[in-house]
Amino acid sequence: MHFTSERPLDDDVLERAFTLDGIPGLLWTAEPSSAAAPLVLLGHPGGLDRMYPRLQARARDCLAAGYAAATIELPGAGGRAPLPDVDRARAELQRALAAGDRVGDDVVDRLVVPLVERSVPEWRSALDALLALPGLGGPVGWSGGVIAIGVRMALVEPRIAAAVLYAGSFVPRATVAEARLVTVPLLVLLQWDDEWNDRQMALDLFDALGSEQKTLHANTGGHTGVPAFEGDSVKRFLGRHLR
Amino acid sequence: MHFTSERPLDDDVLERAFTLDGIPGLLWTAEPSSAAAPLVLLGHPGGLDRMYPRLQARARDCLAAGYAAATIELPGAGGRAPLPDVDRARAELQRALAAGDRVGDDVVDRLVVPLVERSVPEWRSALDALLALPGLGGPVGWSGGVIAIGVRMALVEPRIAAAVLYAGSFVPRATVAEARLVTVPLLVLLQWDDEWNDRQMALDLFDALGSEQKTLHANTGGHTGVPAFEGDSVKRFLGRHLR
Repeated sequence: MHFTSERPLDDDVLERAFTLDGIPGLLWTAEPSSAAAPLVLLGHPGGLDRMYPRLQARARDCLAAGYAAATIELPGAGGRAPLPDVDRARAELQRALAAGDRVGDDVVDRLVVPLVERSVPEWRSALDALLALPGLGGPVGWSGGVIAIGVRMALVEPRIAAAVLYAGSFVPRATVAEARLVTVPLLVLLQWDDEWNDRQMALDLFDALGSEQKTLHANTGGHTGVPAFEGDSVKRFLGRHLR
Repeated sequence: MHFTSERPLDDDVLERAFTLDGIPGLLWTAEPSSAAAPLVLLGHPGGLDRMYPRLQARARDCLAAGYAAATIELPGAGGRAPLPDVDRARAELQRALAAGDRVGDDVVDRLVVPLVERSVPEWRSALDALLALPGLGGPVGWSGGVIAIGVRMALVEPRIAAAVLYAGSFVPRATVAEARLVTVPLLVLLQWDDEWNDRQMALDLFDALGSEQKTLHANTGGHTGVPAFEGDSVKRFLGRHLR
């Protein structure tokens, strides 16, 4: 892990950019750091530059709650090597949505499964490197999309103690099967009128999740219209499980 | 409105029992009272004695947030005159659930519609009497079941500024149509594994509700297993709308 830049934000938050095996990432920590803050991994749909304002706002919420926060770029996104098959599947999915057509399972699989398969090992390597830094400890939380990545992380990464899953993307068939095996406490955020998501698919996934403690928060509005008060819900949920 | 008893609880809460046109009710206010506290009406499935511990706990939450709280007995419940047709429909519904049979729309209508038709005018008369008392003002919130009663109250009672609806009972067909006309901010609580409820019916009702601001909180667990942290969610929701 190589830090490529660092800058203090205005409220005792240090923002550092890093690369890990060529993958860009961002780390936000309290300055001065407290002893072994819990770490929240911020999931997102790819494109750190485009997502930066929202990621920084979510990171600030984490810092205000006493955690550190970090994220890495998704495979094929930002300046990373393109994934032509994934890009083709994404274009097919967007054409189907624009035309009002049903989105085929195979398109979802070709778009999302490679992102899960490639990104989860990268997130786990990043977690190894991050937890080796001074001032970062456990437990670890996950918060964000892509929901299939969050499900896989919650399933395979034992350091994750609780996960906030954003139901804002299509769900491969295999993810529903994996979901039944997840056991960590979960908060699922669903935008009821999400133009880029299939509501029934999200509800079926929520139903499948195996965790004894799972909560769904559904709100009116489209994909990017998550109400500001859900930031507080995330904070309260993580506060119950990251202590 | 005649007060029949009053007793101070241990934390500066005054609990008063009353009757209004023969209907028993309970009122909880801060003692000493502050100027014109918002009032929260606590809905419930009938049987004030049986529901008393949970109602008192919910009332204390309201008082802690700076509101007063009140409730009245449902028609046909507690010591009120029985409603034999409603009781018959309830027995039919319970037999169907116990046998794992589909619950017919007509049974739901015969059980719930008379409760809505009879109780809503009573709730509104109680509201007239309550708001005439010193120390009680607006805005007014609704919180509780029966969900069809809460929907009707949210629709017809303009003094209600926000409503928390408990999706723990079956929904008459007419309620889904009414729901489209509701406009006040809503929080709907749903127990995902409720043995006395139809999940899809609850989700369809949530979808139908016309309010621009509506939020669904679904949690794992059965009818009476609402997690304690949802008390905090109710408080935060009412806090956004009763000020």
